[in-house]
Amino acid sequence: MSHKTQEPVITKISDLPLEEARWVTLKKIDYVDQVGKARSWEVAQRKTRGKSGVDAVAMGNILLHPSKPASTLLVIQYRPPLDSYTVEWPAGLIDAEETAEQAAVREFKEETGYDCVVKSVSPAQSADPGMTNANMQLVMVEVQLGEQDEEPEQRLEDGEHIQRVIVPIAELYDRLVEYSKQERMVVAAKLFHFAAGMEFARTQTYFK
Amino acid sequence: MSHKTQEPVITKISDLPLEEARWVTLKKIDYVDQVGKARSWEVAQRKTRGKSGVDAVAMGNILLHPSKPASTLLVIQYRPPLDSYTVEWPAGLIDAEETAEQAAVREFKEETGYDCVVKSVSPAQSADPGMTNANMQLVMVEVQLGEQDEEPEQRLEDGEHIQRVIVPIAELYDRLVEYSKQERMVVAAKLFHFAAGMEFARTQTYFK
Repeated sequence: MSHKTQEPVITKISDLPLEEARWVTLKKIDYVDQVGKARSWEVAQRKTRGKSGVDAVAMGNILLHPSKPASTLLVIQYRPPLDSYTVEWPAGLIDAEETAEQAAVREFKEETGYDCVVKSVSPAQSADPGMTNANMQLVMVEVQLGEQDEEPEQRLEDGEHIQRVIVPIAELYDRLVEYSKQERMVVAAKLFHFAAGMEFARTQTYFK
Repeated sequence: MSHKTQEPVITKISDLPLEEARWVTLKKIDYVDQVGKARSWEVAQRKTRGKSGVDAVAMGNILLHPSKPASTLLVIQYRPPLDSYTVEWPAGLIDAEETAEQAAVREFKEETGYDCVVKSVSPAQSADPGMTNANMQLVMVEVQLGEQDEEPEQRLEDGEHIQRVIVPIAELYDRLVEYSKQERMVVAAKLFHFAAGMEFARTQTYFK
């Protein structure tokens, strides 16, 4: 964070009436359940979903270097909703006219500076199904580095301050646990679960 | 879903003013960023967080049986925010006076009928850091079954209709991909990412 000059600070938290909200809103869903009973549910929604029907992509990424271990690039940024720095894979909203694959390549370039190759695109997944309709796709991407490649420039939008960290994949889980212990830092659940799944597969004794 | 008599149907979706919302709300956060500029952010929040400081737990669970492969229990339920059935690990909100561990044992019993032993508790993770302050902890639990054990009764609250599915752990990823292809079904991102991490560790060629 070369331009970082101070710690972000929250100055005010206030109720946000629906008519003033640009990015999120609240809806009441009335429905009839499995046994015919009328019920209702409260839901938070993004207002930005485009024709893809999916809100966002996250880029599970592998950096391959001729002489270094396979690594993954994480982004650390201040997130006002948590008043904390979050550790995440690069991610972003899918623009109205984009596919998930296009959004992944664009956002990865913007946040990390790297050109990537898409290896796989997951089905749509629900971010937090009890509370929101927010959904996302996990796009696995690969970056092939040369021996002498220098770290590229990011192409951040105004107001984005995103620190890049490169972690050997074999160390990912332990590093996330360490980040979680630091003051004012929190790891995003999707990244943590991926790493926990890797660690589980590596260490479990139930099957091999 | 033995009591299921019909498909749930949404009858109305309406704006939910803040003053009528019981479970969720919207806030505007004013903050000063890293370079001293005043900015604001819109956030959706739960209104139910207790003294643990964490909203929810999810139970990554292993069912051990004398003569069957190690398995995991998934829950499938209709989720009005998505108008779909979601495939998830059992999960629930942490009550005001509970620890994550207590909530995990209680919720696992309610949703699945099984008594479980807690094996590990993760740090707090952020569910969807760009949109909400919602957070959760992944609690890994184990259930030891006997050869003749029958499936226990669930202890569901009024209005909960939760189907249990038991899947061999070695098949988890493929089963989630299959579920994702079905009409009106979506897999929760945290579960999918855990399974994707397992699959990645099992199949990747970057390191072993």
